[in-house]
Amino acid sequence: MANIPYKIYLSEDEMPKQWHNVRAAMKELPEPFLNPATKKPCTADELKHVFCDDLVAQELNTTDEYIDIPQEILDFYRMYRPSPLVRAYNLEKALGTPAEIYYKFEGNNTSGSHKLNSAAAQVYYAKKQGLTHLTTETGAGQWGTALSMACAFYNVDLQVFMVKVSAEQKPNRKAVMETYGGKVTPSPSDTTEVGRKILAENPTTGGSLGCAISEAIEVAVKTDNCRYVLGSVLNHVALHQSIIGMETKAALDKYGIKPDIIIGCAGGGSNLAGLISPFMAGKIRGENDIEFIAVETASCPSLTRGKYAFDFGDTGKTTPLIKMYTLGSGFMPSPNHAGGLRYHGMSPIISKLYHDGYMKAVAVEQTKVFEAATMFARCEGTLPAPESSHAIRVAVDEALKCKETGEKKKIVFGLTGTGYFDMTAYSAYLNGTMTDYIPTDEDLQKGFDSLPKID
Amino acid sequence: MANIPYKIYLSEDEMPKQWHNVRAAMKELPEPFLNPATKKPCTADELKHVFCDDLVAQELNTTDEYIDIPQEILDFYRMYRPSPLVRAYNLEKALGTPAEIYYKFEGNNTSGSHKLNSAAAQVYYAKKQGLTHLTTETGAGQWGTALSMACAFYNVDLQVFMVKVSAEQKPNRKAVMETYGGKVTPSPSDTTEVGRKILAENPTTGGSLGCAISEAIEVAVKTDNCRYVLGSVLNHVALHQSIIGMETKAALDKYGIKPDIIIGCAGGGSNLAGLISPFMAGKIRGENDIEFIAVETASCPSLTRGKYAFDFGDTGKTTPLIKMYTLGSGFMPSPNHAGGLRYHGMSPIISKLYHDGYMKAVAVEQTKVFEAATMFARCEGTLPAPESSHAIRVAVDEALKCKETGEKKKIVFGLTGTGYFDMTAYSAYLNGTMTDYIPTDEDLQKGFDSLPKID
Repeated sequence: MANIPYKIYLSEDEMPKQWHNVRAAMKELPEPFLNPATKKPCTADELKHVFCDDLVAQELNTTDEYIDIPQEILDFYRMYRPSPLVRAYNLEKALGTPAEIYYKFEGNNTSGSHKLNSAAAQVYYAKKQGLTHLTTETGAGQWGTALSMACAFYNVDLQVFMVKVSAEQKPNRKAVMETYGGKVTPSPSDTTEVGRKILAENPTTGGSLGCAISEAIEVAVKTDNCRYVLGSVLNHVALHQSIIGMETKAALDKYGIKPDIIIGCAGGGSNLAGLISPFMAGKIRGENDIEFIAVETASCPSLTRGKYAFDFGDTGKTTPLIKMYTLGSGFMPSPNHAGGLRYHGMSPIISKLYHDGYMKAVAVEQTKVFEAATMFARCEGTLPAPESSHAIRVAVDEALKCKETGEKKKIVFGLTGTGYFDMTAYSAYLNGTMTDYIPTDEDLQKGFDSLPKID
Repeated sequence: MANIPYKIYLSEDEMPKQWHNVRAAMKELPEPFLNPATKKPCTADELKHVFCDDLVAQELNTTDEYIDIPQEILDFYRMYRPSPLVRAYNLEKALGTPAEIYYKFEGNNTSGSHKLNSAAAQVYYAKKQGLTHLTTETGAGQWGTALSMACAFYNVDLQVFMVKVSAEQKPNRKAVMETYGGKVTPSPSDTTEVGRKILAENPTTGGSLGCAISEAIEVAVKTDNCRYVLGSVLNHVALHQSIIGMETKAALDKYGIKPDIIIGCAGGGSNLAGLISPFMAGKIRGENDIEFIAVETASCPSLTRGKYAFDFGDTGKTTPLIKMYTLGSGFMPSPNHAGGLRYHGMSPIISKLYHDGYMKAVAVEQTKVFEAATMFARCEGTLPAPESSHAIRVAVDEALKCKETGEKKKIVFGLTGTGYFDMTAYSAYLNGTMTDYIPTDEDLQKGFDSLPKID
């Protein structure tokens, strides 16, 4: 076996030309979406009012394990892909662990995260269908930036509803989206019915992804030639993110590396679903025994403290019902710095895999996350996003366990993005003013009370 | 010849293991530094009070064309190098030009620029000599960030004097340096004699690189086990930056591409010197006829409107005298958004090459620069730094000339960094409040009046 370089880059020829659809390998499928009025599974036609046609087909496709990536999207991908799979030699040395640590780094593009993988695909399919406008929501801003970049490239108009607390914490994120031509509205806003309703109930709210989704959907269904696009949670987003897992697998296979543990942070769950996709299919078929770990923030613990139930995807209760781990669409997360992890629900694919015992979940507190993030930055060079740093925290913990046991486990984690726009959070950590937010059982109960009743 | 991929990455084996020293190929050398008291060439011993020993040796080395990079620095480089050489297919298409456009992208690291190439080397040599403290200045913040990263890696203390106007425009840059353990002081400050003197003369000044250099040198010479490090201008910095040119040449050679024009932005001149180094040696030897273009900001036009004269490197007049194109160390540039280009002087290597007719220089106004930057961002994806965008502007202009003439020139430019911390500038451009600053002849005369008299 050849020496493993610090960074494994695939050549353009070696880049995967297909996405991986883990549902085709699952023994039991996630429940279909339900129409909240009829409680019957949503039809493709119902979904097409919200999403463009090709994406609806991907959303409902549970049979094709590999799906060809159109050439136009491959052309976009090659602007910033392949992303490197990095051997964290310096981190290993700093920890003094016998474990091998690898991370798939998705931050080397202007959006600063993996979000571009799905943004490129979604805007391409919208353009192909002749749509001229898109709406979306964004939390930490990576998704809004990614979508602005894709919309600039394919020449489609974009309106972004940005969670108000994030818009205030990160004015530069807003400016990046505007540089790429995106129109940004802090959410909740008074420009939509659902926004006005939320503001009437809670005038000082900093907003949430759920609120912003409701506003974006309302504008999409009321505007001609317009659809809504979502950056996480949904099956077609997980599908596009499988490019991460496909590249990771190709890079590991190239050097004969067989991972023991794969770790990813989980907000809506799409990056994690994408990272593990081809490996999980192998586990389901009994071809490997990899341990998969989802890492969520202790302030918004949908997997570790939520319920596996049908729920709305948004606060305004306008989406289909989704069977997932959820804290209830009425749950209002406290202002954790990892804005991308402040979502009440979880990808139905991840939820089902977790429910069926194929993976574990861990919730971690943000001060411990930033401790790992700062250490990582200083020894590996790259400044990680707070969201990604949740995975770093658990990768470090697993590597330290190996130090105790002497095991040479191969640990792979997803480094989903960079933290350039999160310096307020880093400063709070460094000057000791960062605190941890853990919802009480009473806080959670308020969220659970918002769950719809399904007979 | 193989198809040219969108991004050419060298493998770790293909990465250059030597720096290139263009002085060894020059027919006439730049003048040596002069001791301002004696007007005699500085000796190595004099320079060693300010710089560490190995760097002084590199500074004075005019005979070795190739210099081995120590393994410890190669280990650092592989954390973020090789950087890609990108074929700007999308930009070519957007311009409708028959020209081929390539850019060497140095922004894919947390410092966001090429500065890390010299930071790694300088901190390594300081550590090797047993030094425990370093001081420096930073303008836009890339150099300070790069040096903080290198100091965190090699465990050396760092104090950064940051140009006050940049510190105010970019609080997040300061936070990044602090995350890597750097101590940041806005300059001019009241912590040094020279800072207090500058403040007494001009209490409301936003500072300049020249001021910040003076403060950093004062602290370095007054502190035990401490040296000053500079991120540009000097010969050893240009030497370290030649890794850019060496990689660019290796990547072009791999695909048999012979450049017609090479373009780089020029503040202190080190990135440009590094980019062109091996190509320029070939031109001097008559092996190629490449056109080299230095691009400076019209607000600080040292090459196009300055004098080729001996001058101090800093405002406080504490450095040796350097023969270079200069506006005078007393020149106070107006607050252009490209902070990294607001320096009164220019690399003595670039100055000499320009003086001897080996290269051209162009000065461009910032509104035209941001027009090109925004266009580039939208079609190539990457958000460029204002400094780098000066090179984009001229690359675009050259490609448009080719469109008129039908010439298929191969244009290479240096994309030195990303603009994530420059969103105030982008917003000013987008909302139409950006203005251009061009010094009057009277402004320039004030600077020239500060030039030292040399008989």
